[in-house]
Amino acid sequence: MARIWDNPGKNEWYKITKRPTVDQGSLDQIVREIFQEVEISGNSALAKYTSRFDGVNVDRLQVSKEEIQSAGNRVDDNLKDAINLAKTNITKFHEAQIPTFPKVTTSSGVTCWIEERPIEKIGIYIPGGSAPLFSSVLMLAIPARIARCNQVNICTPPNRDGKIDDVILYTADLCGVNQIFKVGGIQAIAAMGIGTETVPSVDKIFGPGNQYVTAAKQYVQNYQVAIDLPAGPSEVLVLADQIANPSFVASDLLAQAEHGRDSQVVFVTTEIDMIDKVAKEVSYQLNKLPRKDIASKSIEHMNYVWFPDKNTCIDFANTYAPEHLIICVEDQNNIVNKISNAGSVFIGNFSPESAGDYATGTNHTLPTNGYARQYSGVNLSSFKKSISFQQLSEEGLRTIGPSVKRMAEAEGLEAHANSIALRLKQLKD
Amino acid sequence: MARIWDNPGKNEWYKITKRPTVDQGSLDQIVREIFQEVEISGNSALAKYTSRFDGVNVDRLQVSKEEIQSAGNRVDDNLKDAINLAKTNITKFHEAQIPTFPKVTTSSGVTCWIEERPIEKIGIYIPGGSAPLFSSVLMLAIPARIARCNQVNICTPPNRDGKIDDVILYTADLCGVNQIFKVGGIQAIAAMGIGTETVPSVDKIFGPGNQYVTAAKQYVQNYQVAIDLPAGPSEVLVLADQIANPSFVASDLLAQAEHGRDSQVVFVTTEIDMIDKVAKEVSYQLNKLPRKDIASKSIEHMNYVWFPDKNTCIDFANTYAPEHLIICVEDQNNIVNKISNAGSVFIGNFSPESAGDYATGTNHTLPTNGYARQYSGVNLSSFKKSISFQQLSEEGLRTIGPSVKRMAEAEGLEAHANSIALRLKQLKD
Repeated sequence: MARIWDNPGKNEWYKITKRPTVDQGSLDQIVREIFQEVEISGNSALAKYTSRFDGVNVDRLQVSKEEIQSAGNRVDDNLKDAINLAKTNITKFHEAQIPTFPKVTTSSGVTCWIEERPIEKIGIYIPGGSAPLFSSVLMLAIPARIARCNQVNICTPPNRDGKIDDVILYTADLCGVNQIFKVGGIQAIAAMGIGTETVPSVDKIFGPGNQYVTAAKQYVQNYQVAIDLPAGPSEVLVLADQIANPSFVASDLLAQAEHGRDSQVVFVTTEIDMIDKVAKEVSYQLNKLPRKDIASKSIEHMNYVWFPDKNTCIDFANTYAPEHLIICVEDQNNIVNKISNAGSVFIGNFSPESAGDYATGTNHTLPTNGYARQYSGVNLSSFKKSISFQQLSEEGLRTIGPSVKRMAEAEGLEAHANSIALRLKQLKD
Repeated sequence: MARIWDNPGKNEWYKITKRPTVDQGSLDQIVREIFQEVEISGNSALAKYTSRFDGVNVDRLQVSKEEIQSAGNRVDDNLKDAINLAKTNITKFHEAQIPTFPKVTTSSGVTCWIEERPIEKIGIYIPGGSAPLFSSVLMLAIPARIARCNQVNICTPPNRDGKIDDVILYTADLCGVNQIFKVGGIQAIAAMGIGTETVPSVDKIFGPGNQYVTAAKQYVQNYQVAIDLPAGPSEVLVLADQIANPSFVASDLLAQAEHGRDSQVVFVTTEIDMIDKVAKEVSYQLNKLPRKDIASKSIEHMNYVWFPDKNTCIDFANTYAPEHLIICVEDQNNIVNKISNAGSVFIGNFSPESAGDYATGTNHTLPTNGYARQYSGVNLSSFKKSISFQQLSEEGLRTIGPSVKRMAEAEGLEAHANSIALRLKQLKD
């Protein structure tokens, strides 16, 4: 049953903000096995596991140009328009994230600066199943292209007919994805991490997935591959007062709840009667949902939390560090500055999370599980790395050389000191 | 024996660029054990392992104000000046890294932006032993303070007398570190990850360490703690032509080599006779080093590589993706644009790596082990996370709402679609 907390003390916050612990340990064995087999047998290992887990024998691992073209022809024009709008907004927002790093003269003759470079090879995992997540293609392929990554590939599992969803193929092509492979699950992550005869290895893997994919993404880091974010169930915390529309709030809670049985849903308010209103709306709207079975499971373990004042609400939200934070309160713009831990924030009655999931332009790949305390969501810089540069003139070395030598000696690193001493000596001679 | 490669083909690059594989597996058991004990017994587990591994019983885990003050009094004034110069330069360079994110109107009525927030609690690990790495205190505490992290704590092992090196204490205090704890090794990482009666848990752990610390940093990520970078032995690749001074080059190779027996040292050139000159200088300088034993071990497995043209040299350097890249060639500023994978780059005869290790202002915490392909070195943003925001006006929802609804429906997420439909309906009514 959903639980109502009436001004809980800080000693109780731990209980309310705690996420379910997922034991990945039990998956380690199967992950290890599949990685080993992909390492040894390449494509034939992929074929074996695709047959076993997806129930299909795929003739050709890579999606052909013809398949992509005919898929595009089948996508509804209205949906194409919607996808194009999303693409435009995601592009606008991520293009605005190109930082400028000035050259800095730290000491006379010492110039330092940073330059960004794209990560060369990007792998994107897109889950299969009933809901084709083409929005994740948008969110990951668009910034990869803006960052000028050299290779942007997708792995996604085939359906029983050996096919990939039309909208995924259309969106991938629209976003300039280089290659799409019909392989899913642990074996897809292994393929992108290790490389096979057909699937190239990549430098960094992005994208959502079930517990098997999550465990594989953890494990692939042993192969000198980076991943986007540690994963956990999706979350929303709605913080609202009397200006919020209870029906809107309920719809946002349910949008989160329909993602999965383990979705985390929290409602925080200063208005005790809002809890009742929202809860009623939740019950009412829930009954009409096609994914009612899933949503009702996560609503069962949701938390309604009341605090007498707004600052405690914000303090609680920061302690929870939600993936999605919806704020609908009177002085909302005042509150923005006080938010210290959240993935993405939605402000006001007309900013539902769904808008950001698809088309405001912000990225929907966000830290869950409390990781908003220390991780950013995916953004343009997730597809790049920065390199620092320094250039010392003779004067520069004269300026800082003696100090460097002294510090190297104090750390007991004489060869370091010597690399300075030799140069200073030549400058004197 | 150091190996010389004469224009190796790309099929051989794999061998030359391969790093030694470190099997952390064997350490897993001890790491797991110590974490478990710290989780159960807190401070008393720390005391037990400090007694076992550092051979000392520490009365008081936290370094006192008096200890810090008297340590500061014992540090040589010349060294203090040098440390202050380093602090000034590191501050200048990291302060220049504050990015500005514009507010973007992606669609009419849809405003999106990014704001950065400090990671609240930072833990810094500083190794003990013969060489007190106060430079790592500078490199990690200074940007943490610029980022306005709330808590910046250090763990470092005590010596046999239960004391911490004077210069480390002086530097930590100078950089505004909040608390310093006398605990090292796996137990220190466990303490910062889990928290004990005295050592607070943190959100992110930074800093160098031996194989035990490295294994513990890998493991602590299971406790919802982030780490700075995956670790590996330190590396330098020097790329030089006839304008380079062979004696300087040799001193840079040896500065890397003295770090440890497993240090990775590579020399790449278009001038075949430079290999001979540099090798001779290496032998000559090596004999005079106090850490000759260590340096000679890593020089033994170093690689000298010759290619006929500069572009192949750069291509090779990018494939190697070195932690430190020293470039000393005629058209060096032309080459900068072609560098795609490196941690930090040093340009010209008077830019030795040592300068950046201590005082140019750039950060010396850098990706090793080929991770420069996808990881940045530590910089200001390592101490922050970014949060995305979006605010839709009624007009904004009218503009993008129908597209969002359509996409949500196409992904089979009816509750998402409903959160838009409810609002659009009210706007119509």
